[in-house]
Amino acid sequence: MDDVRALWDEVVVVPDFPEPGISFKDLSGILANPTTLGIAVRAWADACRGEEPTMIVGIEARGFPLGAALAYELGCGFVSLRKPGKLPRAVHRREYALEYGTSALELHQDALTAEDRVVIVDDVLATGGTAAAAVHLVRETGAHVISLAAIMDLPFLGGRGVLQAEGVRCHVLLDDDGNPHPHP
Amino acid sequence: MDDVRALWDEVVVVPDFPEPGISFKDLSGILANPTTLGIAVRAWADACRGEEPTMIVGIEARGFPLGAALAYELGCGFVSLRKPGKLPRAVHRREYALEYGTSALELHQDALTAEDRVVIVDDVLATGGTAAAAVHLVRETGAHVISLAAIMDLPFLGGRGVLQAEGVRCHVLLDDDGNPHPHP
Repeated sequence: MDDVRALWDEVVVVPDFPEPGISFKDLSGILANPTTLGIAVRAWADACRGEEPTMIVGIEARGFPLGAALAYELGCGFVSLRKPGKLPRAVHRREYALEYGTSALELHQDALTAEDRVVIVDDVLATGGTAAAAVHLVRETGAHVISLAAIMDLPFLGGRGVLQAEGVRCHVLLDDDGNPHPHP
Repeated sequence: MDDVRALWDEVVVVPDFPEPGISFKDLSGILANPTTLGIAVRAWADACRGEEPTMIVGIEARGFPLGAALAYELGCGFVSLRKPGKLPRAVHRREYALEYGTSALELHQDALTAEDRVVIVDDVLATGGTAAAAVHLVRETGAHVISLAAIMDLPFLGGRGVLQAEGVRCHVLLDDDGNPHPHP
């Protein structure tokens, strides 16, 4: 677990984005550095390989590159949870509250089956509102949600507890002070 | 090259999306199937490994999962070209015409350097308008654009010629009839 500390060197904290009072954690540098991209993906893969996932589900948009790299490493398929109006065929839809505002996610109804074992991927776990909407959307297809993988947890916002209440494990690599985060 | 024909089995053509008269090529099934995801990523990697790329640049949003899987396979970094307002720090910006409407892309000014050799990734090459905007954005950082990788070319829209005029190679796997597409 020690080398996940290297991820923190690539984190940029941007004050007052996207709204005044929000301290945005810009994790784009982790993906731009092949060393840290590899550390993050392998740490998640080691954590969830034993859960025998079949599908990685990425949350738009920062969960897409991270989730697809994990899918590629594990030999799983990759499915997108998208903002409204982006998917061309019949969808399930969930509205949810954000740290700032509200939004919704959609999932193609035929993207997953009851045989699928799913890891959901996003960059940051905050209030858990987005993550819980993702969990419920995936369950509408009949698929089983095993765990959520994120780079960073903001513990003061309580997202981990929201997922625990749903019976979903968390694989989070760092907290917002750069400390390696314990696995469940 | 033969096995790229398997990609076509995962393509769904959706009429009149996102606008009447547009025939949308839904490639999400290629990512959802680990076999075809692997075929696509390895075909691109084989095509561009000799170009010695350092960075893969994905176009929002469908270029993100594909581009990051390619970056992971090649040991490159991954950088996002995003829709306006999504990136938290100083950006370069380009407006462009779409097959349907107009849009813009942004790139963090410090995301690339003059030493970077870049492959741009998107799902579909259509008119080349988005791709040309991406090429110009990347060049604003001083980085060198080597090639563009896409799953599908719509040859009747002429995007390949737009990129050739920019001196950018195309690694496209299929045309819109499902035929394997010749490399440059």
